[in-house]
Amino acid sequence: MKKMFPFALNDIVREGLDKLVPYDAHHYPGVVKLDANENPYPFPAELAQRLGELIGGEMLSRYPDGDATALRQDIAAYLGVKPEQIMVGNGSDELILNILLTFGTGGRVFITNPTFSMYRIHSLVAGAKPIPVPRREDFSLDIPALLCYARKPDARVVFICSPNNPTGNASTLEEIEAILQAVNCLVVVDQAYLEFGGQDCLPLLQRYPHLVILRTFSKAFALAGLRVGYMIGNADVLRQIKKVKQPYNLNAFSQAAARLVLANREVFNQQIQEIINNREQLWQELQGLAGVTPYPSVTNYILFRTNYESKAVYQGLLQKGVLIRRLGGPELPGFLRVSVGTPADNRLFIQALTEVLAELGGKQDVPGA
Amino acid sequence: MKKMFPFALNDIVREGLDKLVPYDAHHYPGVVKLDANENPYPFPAELAQRLGELIGGEMLSRYPDGDATALRQDIAAYLGVKPEQIMVGNGSDELILNILLTFGTGGRVFITNPTFSMYRIHSLVAGAKPIPVPRREDFSLDIPALLCYARKPDARVVFICSPNNPTGNASTLEEIEAILQAVNCLVVVDQAYLEFGGQDCLPLLQRYPHLVILRTFSKAFALAGLRVGYMIGNADVLRQIKKVKQPYNLNAFSQAAARLVLANREVFNQQIQEIINNREQLWQELQGLAGVTPYPSVTNYILFRTNYESKAVYQGLLQKGVLIRRLGGPELPGFLRVSVGTPADNRLFIQALTEVLAELGGKQDVPGA
Repeated sequence: MKKMFPFALNDIVREGLDKLVPYDAHHYPGVVKLDANENPYPFPAELAQRLGELIGGEMLSRYPDGDATALRQDIAAYLGVKPEQIMVGNGSDELILNILLTFGTGGRVFITNPTFSMYRIHSLVAGAKPIPVPRREDFSLDIPALLCYARKPDARVVFICSPNNPTGNASTLEEIEAILQAVNCLVVVDQAYLEFGGQDCLPLLQRYPHLVILRTFSKAFALAGLRVGYMIGNADVLRQIKKVKQPYNLNAFSQAAARLVLANREVFNQQIQEIINNREQLWQELQGLAGVTPYPSVTNYILFRTNYESKAVYQGLLQKGVLIRRLGGPELPGFLRVSVGTPADNRLFIQALTEVLAELGGKQDVPGA
Repeated sequence: MKKMFPFALNDIVREGLDKLVPYDAHHYPGVVKLDANENPYPFPAELAQRLGELIGGEMLSRYPDGDATALRQDIAAYLGVKPEQIMVGNGSDELILNILLTFGTGGRVFITNPTFSMYRIHSLVAGAKPIPVPRREDFSLDIPALLCYARKPDARVVFICSPNNPTGNASTLEEIEAILQAVNCLVVVDQAYLEFGGQDCLPLLQRYPHLVILRTFSKAFALAGLRVGYMIGNADVLRQIKKVKQPYNLNAFSQAAARLVLANREVFNQQIQEIINNREQLWQELQGLAGVTPYPSVTNYILFRTNYESKAVYQGLLQKGVLIRRLGGPELPGFLRVSVGTPADNRLFIQALTEVLAELGGKQDVPGA
């Protein structure tokens, strides 16, 4: 029967999507998971129980508050801004797409590579042109190059991830301000990892209406599973983005969970301090391994390279039950990224890495191994 | 300080968004809520408790399965299709946007008004051109008109809501098939209300690769608060849409809740039968009120008009604590939509409406009141 219909999928898929491949999530049950920069500690059982008790009939069966009024009020109070300066999203991913659908479509978007991949992907999804502006060798921003591009009239959005994923370093407020002073387009500073280090851009918000800051509950606040990101910006800017926002974008349970976490943030602040301590310990241990170069990090992950092919190291670790992130492309050849786990996770990782490097050294007889 | 920066918001908001106004959700606490076609019954307490017990540390703190593998398997088994024919979304809203970002951008999208408003809104968000193809006076599809448009080469997507929101009628399989046979673009049939009536389009899927069906857990299955929609289609079509899908679009709790609901669907099937009975009862009562014309419905809501201005009826009801939906625009002037509630909700509504009509009749002395 199929032949009867001249339906040709490729004829109706819109232009530009050929640059995208579907994202295939891999699932490795039972591994030590150090690939996604999650909070490695068990979610506090007492809070999980209180969350369970919040589940009532109306929360499930009625549409959620599309404005997330209570959650936005709580976040605003936490940050000392007004609720109309806050928008929440189904993860920061959704907010990035919405920013690009509001400002990016048909224009140019500047992305300071290497950085979080969704800025580029969502630019293509939104029909914007992503322009990579490579960072310098130490992964700091190349501000002269960035300004050279971003001052042109077709510039719509600049994305700065600070602290930067996956490199682990942060930009200074002076650097961000230098960009804000020089460009007329939107400047989005993604501070998903701010709780672990780097400078808070919030003080710049009052002076620069074209600054938008992204934050999240997925990392330090241990809610990656519930997808809660938020955006802080000028109320007029957010009002424009609201035009493209799905009316009921954040489900009722995630709204309630984020409020509970925020009200109990001292529990997570303690975890954050432990994760920072674990990071320092892990960095020292990586630094002590022959043939391993870790990069400085103010986040909950560490970028590193080894004297061996990164694919071999990655797969060797996976065979030993440790999942980390292998980076690639022309910008980070041979680089790997490991999330800071619990002390036990980190010990298992260092032990597995030591073994893998020894095995590769024996096989390949590479100097330094 | 603001004057120092030449940032002009309107210069960087992209073209086309001027047609959109931000969605402002209204919140009326404490009313009898008959505006959003939700399942009016309390979510079964035993299931809510079991859901609460599912909340563990890893569910919250780790990223969800971006492929929603288990949920998609369950839905596929429920429907008798393959898991690769299923995509889940953060509500059907997200799926509609993703369809339009994949196929609509830069092309024409045909919308059979009056119908669900998000087809038009998401068309504009995705940079597609929404073309209204009005239904006939009895709200059935005007197939000759639709085919006249949708056969042109710039046609990308046709949206058919069946049963149709807000009119309450369904299209026949023969009508849908006539469209599928005549066009080469994507045909999306939104069956959000199928559990309450109308013909299931699933049997057409095998023969027509350009058919996509939307379904949801928000209506009959009482999970509006958790935002779980799903799409059933040809695996090749879905693979294209996956290019624009956010990697972690459906949170872990909503995935778990949808699975639990599906495994216990006999509880909801019973509620569905009661809602259908309540609908018939409510329709009879509306029919019995002087000056009220209800339209036939195979859904969980009823479209009606009265001899009075719909704004006055709507506000009169709201003052008496009953929230329904007021429709407007050139296509449904003076029309109102009421969701089928519990028998108690429906009694309160009929009583309030009787009073409001009497008050308006006394005030305006309109014939028939």
